[in-house]
Amino acid sequence: NRNHKITILSGDGIGPEVMQQALKVLEAASTKFNFTLETTDCLVGGAAIDAKGCPLPQETVDACEKSDAILFGSVGGPKWENLPPDEQPERGALLPIRKHFNLYANLRPGVCLPALKHASPVKNELIPNGFDVLCVRELTGGIYFGTPKGRDDNQENPTAHDTMVYSKNEIERICRVAFTAAMARDKRLLSVDKANVLQCSILWREVVTEVAKDFPEVELSHMYVDNAAMQLIKQPSQFDVLVTGNLFGDILSDEMAMISGSLGMLPSASLGNKKENGLYFGMYEPSGGSAPDIAGQGIANPIAQILSASMLLRYSLGENEAADAIDAAVNAAIDKGYRTGDLYTGAEGETKVGTSEMGAAIIAAL
Amino acid sequence: NRNHKITILSGDGIGPEVMQQALKVLEAASTKFNFTLETTDCLVGGAAIDAKGCPLPQETVDACEKSDAILFGSVGGPKWENLPPDEQPERGALLPIRKHFNLYANLRPGVCLPALKHASPVKNELIPNGFDVLCVRELTGGIYFGTPKGRDDNQENPTAHDTMVYSKNEIERICRVAFTAAMARDKRLLSVDKANVLQCSILWREVVTEVAKDFPEVELSHMYVDNAAMQLIKQPSQFDVLVTGNLFGDILSDEMAMISGSLGMLPSASLGNKKENGLYFGMYEPSGGSAPDIAGQGIANPIAQILSASMLLRYSLGENEAADAIDAAVNAAIDKGYRTGDLYTGAEGETKVGTSEMGAAIIAAL
Ligand SMILES: CC(C)[C@H](C(=O)O)[C@@H](O)C(=O)O
Ligand SMILES: CC(C)[C@H](C(=O)O)[C@@H](O)C(=O)O
Repeated sequence: NRNHKITILSGDGIGPEVMQQALKVLEAASTKFNFTLETTDCLVGGAAIDAKGCPLPQETVDACEKSDAILFGSVGGPKWENLPPDEQPERGALLPIRKHFNLYANLRPGVCLPALKHASPVKNELIPNGFDVLCVRELTGGIYFGTPKGRDDNQENPTAHDTMVYSKNEIERICRVAFTAAMARDKRLLSVDKANVLQCSILWREVVTEVAKDFPEVELSHMYVDNAAMQLIKQPSQFDVLVTGNLFGDILSDEMAMISGSLGMLPSASLGNKKENGLYFGMYEPSGGSAPDIAGQGIANPIAQILSASMLLRYSLGENEAADAIDAAVNAAIDKGYRTGDLYTGAEGETKVGTSEMGAAIIAAL
Repeated sequence: NRNHKITILSGDGIGPEVMQQALKVLEAASTKFNFTLETTDCLVGGAAIDAKGCPLPQETVDACEKSDAILFGSVGGPKWENLPPDEQPERGALLPIRKHFNLYANLRPGVCLPALKHASPVKNELIPNGFDVLCVRELTGGIYFGTPKGRDDNQENPTAHDTMVYSKNEIERICRVAFTAAMARDKRLLSVDKANVLQCSILWREVVTEVAKDFPEVELSHMYVDNAAMQLIKQPSQFDVLVTGNLFGDILSDEMAMISGSLGMLPSASLGNKKENGLYFGMYEPSGGSAPDIAGQGIANPIAQILSASMLLRYSLGENEAADAIDAAVNAAIDKGYRTGDLYTGAEGETKVGTSEMGAAIIAAL
């Protein structure tokens, strides 16, 4: 079946404008590779709060349920910043979607292309060839969702508590995703934990070590999260695939994205279980935020959104050829020197472009 | 009373050799500033495991109890890496000392001197004047010590759990330390939490906001930990004082230390409650580790240990003049171009020195 249904959640800030380019790229790819895409636009985040009073309206969830995948833009902005955390666009939309659709595997590539390493905050002699790390973050467990979670205000000294909890099965399934990803790359997996302090991490280490037996070709190593936070800066290119829990993954994947210097280039995928056809229901979104400061100006880098669309084609629709072609087209546009403002340095051979010109350059290369 | 008692825990790796220099500096300072120091050496870490079978023997704890402060070297090394986490040198010594002596306030300066910014992994144009950040980490609460903490292996799908818990009082006391530190610096305090996910962080934000009322001159702001991990890299100099919980502080203070590029220069203090005389019982140690790869070669940078001794003089002994003099002597040695291997670049004006020569240069400057 090559008639696919996807739900489009553009959201707030630069979301709508970068999404527009991603949709054009998807359309071009569907024509070229002979598949059809039926898209449904729905409200999410601040836009949904304004229109419907909540960041994730039921009709949005319903539409997602009827589709093969979700292409997500970004949510949030100053307008909604003073709402209670639960009702804010980011938290109020992302966490419920992840939990509802059981999207337990968050794949976040952290890529610094050699041509763009000037944009990295890290000294270029530390990353002579850029780097390419994949962070695999567990996304539906750990301290995000563990119970009990709450407050005890009825005592002289009020307390709050959160529970980090992991089961063997939860750890095993995310580790399998990570080992499988490592098999398709450089076959090196680093598991990040805090096994010198956390019981969850001790179990994590046991399980990942056990799963490793099924992937004898992959070289497994372990690192404490504090050390990983240092090593990522010191030498990001030492890593291939990283696997870690929800909270550590939140911190380390953002750190890695910043180190790459190309936040506007980084996509992400949040996947559930494999379906019978070998594909995943998933949600795909840029790693960066809604960037309200530059929204509406037509200058945002659409590449993270376009590469998210490519991940969607690959993992949820099985349109690997189209995904490969989009990835290649993005690289071609970069090689030709097209740069949005976030990456433009004024060096010879660079052409400064806006959001839609970058989209057009990628479509041209397709 | 200017007769002080301190317990010396040199530990493993480079610990003993950098400690030797710190003790010489302390001796010189005590002569110059007319106080006396009675030091007691005790076993800790791997050295204690080898001699006594455990990383923190009771006689070590007893000696610490009889003293005004602990000067700690570093512990750990490959020899003890395969012990169960609880029995390892780092975890088995540090966590019990912190808890036993109620050392809830961990002060970790993250300083990148302008003269040493070449050693930072961050591009120098991002830190034209170096930076000077103080991380205040809560050290005896949070998920490190919260209960329940354990395993449930008696079910088909074994689970593990850890509890993050914070009380109002715990948050309040660490925040007061942080605000007080900010008052003596640039009067800007950033509180780092994950209030969009954690109940502990929501309480944290409430309490820090309340404590702020007692420090109206300090500008308080808040940031989520994932964003803080990014901003530290993007622009470390934007921060003055950071305050955060135990786990986030573990990760961020190490990240900050790596960004400074001068791990061998960074001391730390772990303080308990103020005593009637206005001073703290405390433990002082370098931020870096035991560096077993360079141990015994006489090339380790002793400055982190020497600056830890200076913090000890200031916070636990009230010998502020001596502490100021040591800090100045360290800066003078750097200004004169003395560099241990970790910081030596071969630039004009630099003299490469070993551990004891650096110690001698600092004593000469004293
Ligand atoms: C908005 C927030 C709850 C979320 C998270 O912490 O998971 C975000 O930081 C992310 O990483 O997608
Ligand atoms: C050894 C370990 C338990 C400890 C911690 O996590 O606190 C260490 O990383 C530190 O920061 O002093």
